[in-house]
Amino acid sequence: MSGKGVWKTLEKSPLDQSVPLREALDEIPWNADGLIPAIAQQYDSGEVLMLAWVNREALQETLNRGRVCYWSRSRRQLWRKGESSGQVQELREMRFDCDGDTLLLLVDQTGPACHTGRRGCFYNLVQGDRLVVDKPVLIDPAKLYAK
Amino acid sequence: MSGKGVWKTLEKSPLDQSVPLREALDEIPWNADGLIPAIAQQYDSGEVLMLAWVNREALQETLNRGRVCYWSRSRRQLWRKGESSGQVQELREMRFDCDGDTLLLLVDQTGPACHTGRRGCFYNLVQGDRLVVDKPVLIDPAKLYAK
Repeated sequence: MSGKGVWKTLEKSPLDQSVPLREALDEIPWNADGLIPAIAQQYDSGEVLMLAWVNREALQETLNRGRVCYWSRSRRQLWRKGESSGQVQELREMRFDCDGDTLLLLVDQTGPACHTGRRGCFYNLVQGDRLVVDKPVLIDPAKLYAK
Repeated sequence: MSGKGVWKTLEKSPLDQSVPLREALDEIPWNADGLIPAIAQQYDSGEVLMLAWVNREALQETLNRGRVCYWSRSRRQLWRKGESSGQVQELREMRFDCDGDTLLLLVDQTGPACHTGRRGCFYNLVQGDRLVVDKPVLIDPAKLYAK
């Protein structure tokens, strides 16, 4: 893997030290599909809402617009979150992890983040030998994606 | 992608409905390397600590032991978190997302989760055109990994 220079520098950096964002973006260790995972967390409650993927273009658009844009692996196109449902994610903070291969997006989520109409995607809880749905549907997905 | 039956069933399930965990584990849509990403979140503070990867064996061991085990992609072996550093993650809750391809692990993290000696890995904050280190090193990594 090439170009871990920036991330190694940041690893060893004291508090408040910084590098140019552009240099870091140029050294993101994208996977074979040109993507890294992005975790969306509601900025005030701390709830982890979802995980999706970004490519360089989606990441740049998210920074430019202050609103989260992913890359849809199934549709193979930019996925402006909330474009069809209206359930947008306003970006409050963007963070990279220690080796620059994962994003943490602190967002303000309008309504449900999940396509099932639930607030977040992590509604399947392991309880003993069962997997239990423990979050309610807030909005019927049929209404969420109606024209 | 085969076997999305369980996840589709859960999508449409009302609160408190459940399926056998074993059936869900058999239908995880592993990636080409047999892995899915796992987000570790501190159970009480809500801080997102790190993202790593699990295969079926690591997932099963985590469930069996109640302590988090990942798959190390660089070392290509099971990674019992804290095995060398002592900074273990006790599992409090395990959650799957809507399509079963991401885990959320609510954990009780002993000390730093990050190999840099910081509490979590997401210490690189985007501020304008800079990437700024905004979390302190709690323990010198040289001490963390000393024998």
